[in-house]
Amino acid sequence: MIKTPYLLFLGDAPDQLAAKVAQGIKDWRPDNAVGQFRMEGCKADVGLTDMTLEDAKAAGAATLVIGVANRGGVISPEWKKVLVMALEEGFDLASGLHNLLSEEADLVAVAAACGRELHDVRIPSVEYPIANGKKRTGKRVLAVGTDCSVGKMYTALCMDAEMKKRGMKSNFRATGQTGILITGDGVPLDAVIADFMAGSVEYLTPDNDADHWDHIEGQGSLFHVSYSGVTMALIHGGQPDALILAHEPTREHMRGLPDYQQPSLHDLRDTALTLAKVANPACQIVGISVNTQHMTDVDAKAYLAEVEADMGLPATDPFRYGAAKLVDALEAI
Amino acid sequence: MIKTPYLLFLGDAPDQLAAKVAQGIKDWRPDNAVGQFRMEGCKADVGLTDMTLEDAKAAGAATLVIGVANRGGVISPEWKKVLVMALEEGFDLASGLHNLLSEEADLVAVAAACGRELHDVRIPSVEYPIANGKKRTGKRVLAVGTDCSVGKMYTALCMDAEMKKRGMKSNFRATGQTGILITGDGVPLDAVIADFMAGSVEYLTPDNDADHWDHIEGQGSLFHVSYSGVTMALIHGGQPDALILAHEPTREHMRGLPDYQQPSLHDLRDTALTLAKVANPACQIVGISVNTQHMTDVDAKAYLAEVEADMGLPATDPFRYGAAKLVDALEAI
Repeated sequence: MIKTPYLLFLGDAPDQLAAKVAQGIKDWRPDNAVGQFRMEGCKADVGLTDMTLEDAKAAGAATLVIGVANRGGVISPEWKKVLVMALEEGFDLASGLHNLLSEEADLVAVAAACGRELHDVRIPSVEYPIANGKKRTGKRVLAVGTDCSVGKMYTALCMDAEMKKRGMKSNFRATGQTGILITGDGVPLDAVIADFMAGSVEYLTPDNDADHWDHIEGQGSLFHVSYSGVTMALIHGGQPDALILAHEPTREHMRGLPDYQQPSLHDLRDTALTLAKVANPACQIVGISVNTQHMTDVDAKAYLAEVEADMGLPATDPFRYGAAKLVDALEAI
Repeated sequence: MIKTPYLLFLGDAPDQLAAKVAQGIKDWRPDNAVGQFRMEGCKADVGLTDMTLEDAKAAGAATLVIGVANRGGVISPEWKKVLVMALEEGFDLASGLHNLLSEEADLVAVAAACGRELHDVRIPSVEYPIANGKKRTGKRVLAVGTDCSVGKMYTALCMDAEMKKRGMKSNFRATGQTGILITGDGVPLDAVIADFMAGSVEYLTPDNDADHWDHIEGQGSLFHVSYSGVTMALIHGGQPDALILAHEPTREHMRGLPDYQQPSLHDLRDTALTLAKVANPACQIVGISVNTQHMTDVDAKAYLAEVEADMGLPATDPFRYGAAKLVDALEAI
């Protein structure tokens, strides 16, 4: 568990997109961030107060979170200066970079000397069990996609936010690096050893109150040959009561696989539901989340209406038009 | 790659079953083993000549393979004496135990001093790529099971042996510890990091001659919630041209999961073929392998006839009745 609140490190981000982890934290857990730390030349701004390390410490920040991608696969000397100072000022560090903090000898030494923690959310910190498949109490919903990166995490975060607004019991359960940094906890599923994948998802979504919903962050796609095993483990380890189909209609091929076409929503529905019923025979498909970011408002609404008619299920872009339709469907279970 | 031939270490096996790895090597790659090494009190015998380390060295053995399960999760002092002597006599060591040879400081030190290699086939020795899904040349067949441990490895080995007998080009591709020790090479798929599972299967089954068959060792089951992600990665990374359905009809529930029932062969066929066609649209189900070890000859033959009629596919127990029917079906593709 990463200590909150955070100071978000934007470094020398070359553009706004490079700071998407920081933006995600600001958008979804604004209470977790007291401010942003920008170095000279930083081209990103997530709209928080600019703070020095001292300012942030005074405001109660406990962890400096690297909210920006680095360049060239190294942690630069300029970054290092800030990270070392942060440890000395009493901050823990958290990072989802491929370069692990724990493999930087200087950071490890300074952290040890200062009694601070280094969190690399890209690697598991827990020895997960092998899945036992036992039925758990509480309710779980998982978004499964026609492809990777179609908005499954945002769908889960939107539904969680809508449930909280309605006073329902609800948790977002992170399974990827950005999700873990947003919430401070989770399972970095793509880095888990094969035999323990489903078990790590069981661990992440334990028994809970009968009226509590876990929104499990989806990964990959059953139809993406590079990552389908990870998706499969989420479906069986998560034993979801409800599935949301997630889709991005403007893709020309599967992400990173030019020779592969996206499946239809019908194919996704049939395959995902068959497999989900192995772990939870009562599982239902309750709605469709469409990522319409590349469509005009008129086109998006027309497409959503068409999908609703075709599939007989509520369809929305939860980030653009709100998750109310999807949460209504979940409440009806 | 583990150097052959082997001397098979049976240690102080309490019974025959404990030596099943050694038995598998003896059954499937008899040319790979010059003899067996048994300690006092050993209750197993795989039918090879008993040899001292010196005898085996003289007979050309290059690697001492631990062909027996250990007890209590430790490598005993009695075993250690033999393993150290073997290193000093010039043998490499190979093991599929959960206790890694490479975590035993004394073995590591002696191996380094003697210039010998320690092979722990339970952990990957290669950095596998992320799967790219590109169509590969050559043909591949994969057995998928209604459950775990229903005979998928034996099915692959039987088909490989039958093809070799017919003069066809064929390789068994190991994905588990026993299979790797049998052949001296392979991918320990259950120990691969999630993101690289499918890529490791692509790596294992590269481009080959158009008339060459890879028999990919199956793992887990799409219907076994603990391990289904591993099976999924095999189906998409292996991009099989042909699937064999594997079944054990006397199981009362899924292995290790008392609350889960086995799927029907119809369910397995439909789900596995749908998913396999994502990676290889031409994939076909060509036959059924039934593990009849717990049935009388009369019952087994009646059951096989019933399955053939029901499924419209050739069905056999390849270990009991030969793999000719399955290989006939593969040749017809």
